[in-house]
Amino acid sequence: MQRTRFDNRECPVAQALEIIGEWWSLLIVRDALRGLRRFEAFQASLGIARNMLSRRLKALVAAGILEKRAYSERPLRHEYRLTAKGRELMPVMVSLLIWGNRWAAPAAGPTTLLVDRATGQPIEPRLSLTGPPLRPDEISLATGPGAGAEMRAAFALMRAAANERRAAAPRSANLDVSSKTG
Amino acid sequence: MQRTRFDNRECPVAQALEIIGEWWSLLIVRDALRGLRRFEAFQASLGIARNMLSRRLKALVAAGILEKRAYSERPLRHEYRLTAKGRELMPVMVSLLIWGNRWAAPAAGPTTLLVDRATGQPIEPRLSLTGPPLRPDEISLATGPGAGAEMRAAFALMRAAANERRAAAPRSANLDVSSKTG
Repeated sequence: MQRTRFDNRECPVAQALEIIGEWWSLLIVRDALRGLRRFEAFQASLGIARNMLSRRLKALVAAGILEKRAYSERPLRHEYRLTAKGRELMPVMVSLLIWGNRWAAPAAGPTTLLVDRATGQPIEPRLSLTGPPLRPDEISLATGPGAGAEMRAAFALMRAAANERRAAAPRSANLDVSSKTG
Repeated sequence: MQRTRFDNRECPVAQALEIIGEWWSLLIVRDALRGLRRFEAFQASLGIARNMLSRRLKALVAAGILEKRAYSERPLRHEYRLTAKGRELMPVMVSLLIWGNRWAAPAAGPTTLLVDRATGQPIEPRLSLTGPPLRPDEISLATGPGAGAEMRAAFALMRAAANERRAAAPRSANLDVSSKTG
């Protein structure tokens, strides 16, 4: 029995990882959950070659995680928005953030805090069978004590993206930075 | 500002992904959360070359996610157990499982269900700010309607590992299969 070989492609965890693909894809989803939508914003955040980013965005669109929409007709400009399938990766991302803060933060402390959007206080959602489900609009991100230049630049990108979105539509359900943070 | 390049290594999600490493590592952690501890069991589950598995287990030990312990002196035999740092990846794994079941299951339905260990009923824990935290010993796995030969073989491995553990210690807090399932 123990000689049976199978790579367990049937497993839902393996299936999820198969779709999400590489770490890079998950970092693009992270940025999309933070509110980034435009090619230039993803590129500034991830610092990867344009052709590579282009390929990865295409793969995420093909996987049904992002959708490409025109936000301007003249000139024609597109943005990438999370689909329901993409937005539902939020618990994966929040769980990775909490684990990263607990086990991989620099000595100075976490660089990014998950905070209550209304109060700005740090929060730590947990998996629960009975609690009311966390809504994306209840949470926000704030810089933590370990944040350096890189994280401050990330927050500047998030704020710029939030301003663009507010200009387009008054309310947003992204895992947004509040205007207080930074 | 948008020309600034950084790969955002400060981000806790990126830091977490950096430590967890490749998908393969996460699949080893998945198997460890399912209760697998022995080299042969991981090998049967993952179906990868022994030298590759050996390298990945070593990397997870070096990252502090697994620890290597002797379970027999004569002959000397080791097993790999999750540390606290490793066990706390459970919410990441449960979130991936739920997402995989919702968005990547075969047409016949999910292959693996997360169930209440006491009742065997399917459960879907969610992130919550106020609910009582899910305890690993509250949950169990069961085969779902989409399970095929591969998943049944995975459950056979989990049951064998559970039997080994019960022989060694009567109680376990692993994300275990109950004896009813399969």
